[in-house]
Amino acid sequence: MHAAATSAAVRAPESDVETAIARLSERFGPRLSTGAAIREQHASVVTWIAAEPPDAVAFPRDTEEVAEIVRICAEHRAPIIPFGAGSSLEGHVNAPFGGVSISTAQMTEIVAVHAEDLDAVVQPGVTRKALNAHLRDAGLFFPIDPGADASIGGMAATRASGTNAVRYGTMKDAVLGLTVVTASGEVMRTGGRAKKSSAGYDLTRLFVGSEGTLGVIAEVTLRLHGSPEAVAGGVCPFPNVRAACDAAILTIQTGLPIARIELLDAAMVAATNAYSRLALPVAPTLFVEFHGTDASVHEQSERFGEIAADLGGGPLDWTTKAEDRTRLWTARHDATWAAAALRSGAKPVPTDVCVPISRLADCVEETIEDIARSGLVAPIVGHVGDGNFHVLPLVKPEDAGERAACAAFISRLVERALRMGGTSTGEHGIGQGKMAYLEAEHGAAAVEAMRALKRALDPFNIMNPGKIVIP
Amino acid sequence: MHAAATSAAVRAPESDVETAIARLSERFGPRLSTGAAIREQHASVVTWIAAEPPDAVAFPRDTEEVAEIVRICAEHRAPIIPFGAGSSLEGHVNAPFGGVSISTAQMTEIVAVHAEDLDAVVQPGVTRKALNAHLRDAGLFFPIDPGADASIGGMAATRASGTNAVRYGTMKDAVLGLTVVTASGEVMRTGGRAKKSSAGYDLTRLFVGSEGTLGVIAEVTLRLHGSPEAVAGGVCPFPNVRAACDAAILTIQTGLPIARIELLDAAMVAATNAYSRLALPVAPTLFVEFHGTDASVHEQSERFGEIAADLGGGPLDWTTKAEDRTRLWTARHDATWAAAALRSGAKPVPTDVCVPISRLADCVEETIEDIARSGLVAPIVGHVGDGNFHVLPLVKPEDAGERAACAAFISRLVERALRMGGTSTGEHGIGQGKMAYLEAEHGAAAVEAMRALKRALDPFNIMNPGKIVIP
Repeated sequence: MHAAATSAAVRAPESDVETAIARLSERFGPRLSTGAAIREQHASVVTWIAAEPPDAVAFPRDTEEVAEIVRICAEHRAPIIPFGAGSSLEGHVNAPFGGVSISTAQMTEIVAVHAEDLDAVVQPGVTRKALNAHLRDAGLFFPIDPGADASIGGMAATRASGTNAVRYGTMKDAVLGLTVVTASGEVMRTGGRAKKSSAGYDLTRLFVGSEGTLGVIAEVTLRLHGSPEAVAGGVCPFPNVRAACDAAILTIQTGLPIARIELLDAAMVAATNAYSRLALPVAPTLFVEFHGTDASVHEQSERFGEIAADLGGGPLDWTTKAEDRTRLWTARHDATWAAAALRSGAKPVPTDVCVPISRLADCVEETIEDIARSGLVAPIVGHVGDGNFHVLPLVKPEDAGERAACAAFISRLVERALRMGGTSTGEHGIGQGKMAYLEAEHGAAAVEAMRALKRALDPFNIMNPGKIVIP
Repeated sequence: MHAAATSAAVRAPESDVETAIARLSERFGPRLSTGAAIREQHASVVTWIAAEPPDAVAFPRDTEEVAEIVRICAEHRAPIIPFGAGSSLEGHVNAPFGGVSISTAQMTEIVAVHAEDLDAVVQPGVTRKALNAHLRDAGLFFPIDPGADASIGGMAATRASGTNAVRYGTMKDAVLGLTVVTASGEVMRTGGRAKKSSAGYDLTRLFVGSEGTLGVIAEVTLRLHGSPEAVAGGVCPFPNVRAACDAAILTIQTGLPIARIELLDAAMVAATNAYSRLALPVAPTLFVEFHGTDASVHEQSERFGEIAADLGGGPLDWTTKAEDRTRLWTARHDATWAAAALRSGAKPVPTDVCVPISRLADCVEETIEDIARSGLVAPIVGHVGDGNFHVLPLVKPEDAGERAACAAFISRLVERALRMGGTSTGEHGIGQGKMAYLEAEHGAAAVEAMRALKRALDPFNIMNPGKIVIP
């Protein structure tokens, strides 16, 4: 699973990281750190992918400082690794060839909120929770919700999505424009504040999901939404996982504008009960939420209840109370930790795939059978309205056999998703962890086009090298 | 306004169009035409941009034939101009350096409709009306509606949108994946059928809106929607254009999920009354449409009516009868012809801009004042829920003074939109007509990045040269 195995690239011989760091240190003083602890905190820490710390971490405060750092690194061909909240899951923030991490921890300004246009301009280190706290009084919200309190810059870079994507889309839809520092240290604007444009190539969408390999995101213009007048939600158990998936499928197919529809398999419900002190029936369960007017959330809830009942599910235990909903969704977001608590000494290896919605039940069912055959402990939780689900195998890091079994399982999971017309990752990204599947998913010509784009925008391969594609 | 003025490129000296055409003629027989009438039909005909016909037009039937044509053209460095329905407005289909137009007129197969996944796979020559006729019995529809019965390939290439975009998005949102023939004649798949993916660079969004300058779109996978259970719509007059714009602004700001909200200024209403035999009050008017359940369209209509009344508008003359709505929207879509009929011997020069919604009223009002000062006849019609509007100056083509006045007006219009944080084109694209504004809109660094992308994917500048950017 480690990128080094698939990597044909090495740091360019002319790369002189030491001189770059010396110059950065002179310029930025204590805002350029080479301490071991700091460096280790800026390697991939949340998954089993081996941590590869950078040689130094820089803490710029604004776009111009990011540009300065990039220009110095570029001059000495030092690799640059943009770093947000560190919550990415596929080794995106590792430094396999060393170099300088650019942390956005000091770029946390909400530059502007244009309530009348439903947009905001933020520095990349602003987290989604900080942004929503800031927006609340204005009656606005930013819907993209990957669970972790990720940074907006990181979310843009990885094309994040999460529980609300079924209604509000992903970062591809939420980002109106970007300020990007190019690989040569120039400051570039992509997109703007108009809601739509057909003026030239869509650079915004090219940088959204580029994982720091084409440039550094230094500012983000985001689309916001008005807070819904009424919110209702609830939990709904099902006799089996197929029935739960079929309910999600029918909900989407009938055009119900559901805001959230999340599957927890029985293993995940048990883990969540234990970790979050809930008392849900241990059965495959959908967590649902409806946004709208009072009348429309009632109508939606009723319709969803009918769909569930037709499939033997229910009853839908629903509520419009904010505190009950918060408790439920906190439990949902703690799924990774709940899963981890199932097996002491084990580490969760979160992975995700996404399939066309009609294949969701097949894919989840086959995956559960595969988990059983593999002898893995691996709860499932997912954004099933999008056909997207996560598996959380719990693996003892020191056990090579378990690691191999897990890697083989993930390979089979990806192959299954691709066979069903899906993708190797719905929202986690490629990073180091899924590079091996890129060609199987997209074909040689598309991967070659990606390489050509990478060479065009980062000719010296200094931008987050060793991620997505080897140019 | 003509691209040749801003063009630094010339056809490569090694370009040998004659040999390419001879080989294509041998291979494709009558499906390669060099007749003058056919060539002229495949130049830009719907605007005042001077027609520049290609040297030949090829009529492939499938992706492999497109690839064959591109490979032959690439070998001889012959320019390639993809051609759909010919309804683009900024000279996209012109052949300023000659070469071969690839018509998709014989690529009209609806390859697959996956009703259960709400997607379809179509050849690029399928028109939006043909697709919707095919989908109707399945209870599905494809919402992107630029007015003209454009081809799906052309709509993808120009990032088209239209009246439904306020609710359903633009082609950026509607295209799930593409089959593209690259500039070297390879067949490439971008995207897939999963609703979302974060697997690598977003090649789909890069090709959507690339206007044929990076490759030829040979197949499109589209997202569909279930036909709404209930549709209601109507017309609502306002005392002045600012009140009408403000109603659109408030509708969006309050999160009303309106499906269509179109402005016709008083001049446009008068033209429409005459052309489409309606008897609307001659005042700035919004055409609106609501999609949902019976209950929700009633609720939406009521809320919209309240917003309109608060601004002195109304009454909202509304209906749920399909034939009444069809009559209204047919009239709306005939706006260009209705405008043209206002002034015999004149040709409409449709242009569009898009601004953040809060600036819509300012931008429309200033534009109407500018029209009055310029002495132009130029009705306005627009997708105002997106902040997007069209101006249709009516210009006598043989009158150089009028042409110059119109060109100066369009320049001011674009400058005004950019000054207000908007874009030079919300949905028509850059083509030849708006190349001059690209740098003012995006800045030098972004335009240079676009050039780098163009060079990377089309190193010999054979793909629709002379459009968007000069590499």
